[in-house]
Amino acid sequence: MKMNITIKDVAKKAGVSISTVSRVINDSKPVTDEVKQKVLDVIKETGYIPNPLARSLVTKKSQLIGVIVPEVSDSFVNEILNGIEEIAKMYDYDILLANTYSDKEQELKSINLLRAKQVEGIVMISWILDEDHINYIQNCGMPATYISKTARDFDIYTVSTSNKEATYDMTNYLIGKGHEKIAFVMTSQDDTVLEMERLSGYEKALSENNINLDNSLIKHGGTTYEGGYKSMKELLEDGIIPHAAFVTGDEAAIGAINAICDAGYKVPEDISVTGFNDVKIAKMYRPKLTTVYQPLYDMGAVAIRMVIKLINKEPIDGKKIELPYRIIERESVIERKK
Amino acid sequence: MKMNITIKDVAKKAGVSISTVSRVINDSKPVTDEVKQKVLDVIKETGYIPNPLARSLVTKKSQLIGVIVPEVSDSFVNEILNGIEEIAKMYDYDILLANTYSDKEQELKSINLLRAKQVEGIVMISWILDEDHINYIQNCGMPATYISKTARDFDIYTVSTSNKEATYDMTNYLIGKGHEKIAFVMTSQDDTVLEMERLSGYEKALSENNINLDNSLIKHGGTTYEGGYKSMKELLEDGIIPHAAFVTGDEAAIGAINAICDAGYKVPEDISVTGFNDVKIAKMYRPKLTTVYQPLYDMGAVAIRMVIKLINKEPIDGKKIELPYRIIERESVIERKK
Repeated sequence: MKMNITIKDVAKKAGVSISTVSRVINDSKPVTDEVKQKVLDVIKETGYIPNPLARSLVTKKSQLIGVIVPEVSDSFVNEILNGIEEIAKMYDYDILLANTYSDKEQELKSINLLRAKQVEGIVMISWILDEDHINYIQNCGMPATYISKTARDFDIYTVSTSNKEATYDMTNYLIGKGHEKIAFVMTSQDDTVLEMERLSGYEKALSENNINLDNSLIKHGGTTYEGGYKSMKELLEDGIIPHAAFVTGDEAAIGAINAICDAGYKVPEDISVTGFNDVKIAKMYRPKLTTVYQPLYDMGAVAIRMVIKLINKEPIDGKKIELPYRIIERESVIERKK
Repeated sequence: MKMNITIKDVAKKAGVSISTVSRVINDSKPVTDEVKQKVLDVIKETGYIPNPLARSLVTKKSQLIGVIVPEVSDSFVNEILNGIEEIAKMYDYDILLANTYSDKEQELKSINLLRAKQVEGIVMISWILDEDHINYIQNCGMPATYISKTARDFDIYTVSTSNKEATYDMTNYLIGKGHEKIAFVMTSQDDTVLEMERLSGYEKALSENNINLDNSLIKHGGTTYEGGYKSMKELLEDGIIPHAAFVTGDEAAIGAINAICDAGYKVPEDISVTGFNDVKIAKMYRPKLTTVYQPLYDMGAVAIRMVIKLINKEPIDGKKIELPYRIIERESVIERKK
């Protein structure tokens, strides 16, 4: 292994002064094309890496944005990340990712870490965002956008989908297919704005169709495969056999389908099932999952674009962006025979 | 939003000198417990973040390791990452992640970026690692371990599974179940050491059982769902109906199963299918996938432990670690009726 190369080594090898090398690196003052090429050649050849702090003191720009995620392995997070990274690249920003396993202490640590690494802004994806996260980020004066189930509870920049309308539409869709006893397996028990919106969309559709709300059909199972499996298993074991199950997460919906099959019922013949999000596995699983398409890629794209606008002090239209959804009909819902 | 807090502000507020604050931050010289607590309280209260370069110049340690991955959304990568992050935490290292979409230019850029952010070491996961990557990392004198299909082609620190033996065993397992016409859908066309080892494991098992090698049964489909689907569809459209298909990736195996079902055949009744890796979806899909368990979490754990050892100049047993595999029997393979 070679020793670390310094700016002095580069200057010596290129036969120029240290300040000339510095000018080339920082593009700060004019240098002839010939000299510039010579310096760049030596930099390439030696693998010299400019001192990042010295450099950012001159340019004041790190061209770095930090992205904090609760779990890179979650499909929901993945598809948002794709949008973030593609748009960041388009605007010539690099991304530093911090994975927190949804641990609050780790989330706060990651904010400090990214700040210390001189990111210019942060996109924070967190299952449960609270005031501490927001204060931490705001205290260091860092532009930030947030994607979280709880983001709508705060006065911050956030991107989401119209959840109430989506839940209302999907419930109506199931009712339109003849289903009345519709289990509703939600992501979390917390009374967040988002969960309340979803629940109210479900309730509104039932009420408009003169179907009584039955609380025993409502479960709080989480977003995971295991959570969906467990919720549906409990329902069936309690002797509750719904016409349909609306599970507000695709992996959880697949868990629910497997619980139904393991109990000896068929999907969609005996029980129809729908998901939420339209992640990759919704198309891979059989029966293919009927679900609510959330524009996750676009949510990521809008979130990173907002941060870049904040960094550059460009005008922004509104703090809370809601993106459109649509229902994707596949194979897991059929018309109920009465 | 507050303005950035400086070390001067902290000193003033705590009623101590700047050098005292610096001593507390860097743990460099003795300070009384009382003073230390006062400074820490002010740091917490103000949200002050120490200048990272100044700090690392004193401690010479960033406690940061960079991890470069081809695609965070890939299940194989996810499970390795879990191992990396958990062990990093145990040794009090933070992780900075760079996602490259398997783009070589982006991979090289990420190496420089992480280096500039003063990581102490790198774990590099790359589908196709080549000399450029390795030279780039070695030129900056950075400890590194690699996980890649091509890692075994180079004299570097790497973690993998015994691929030849795994492929040999799984092929034997299928033969033991009465299958003779066994399609082999491999991940890539490149003649890497790993691909050759896998192919030779397959060939060895056939040969020992006096089954002729039929090249029309061998496909190079990639690791994706779509790749597996396409490879199997092509086989079936060419009129080749195998007894079993050994697909060396779980998502690709599920693609193959769907192609078989879409062509009107049943899995496992008409064609048995096996995967490789044992990622999350192998248990979620129905029929549950019979596959080769690769200890992906452990691979990540060993890779990060190696880097930490390299950073601390601790002794290491061997540059090429191979971890054990095992065959996981589930529902996608049955005994062939003759």
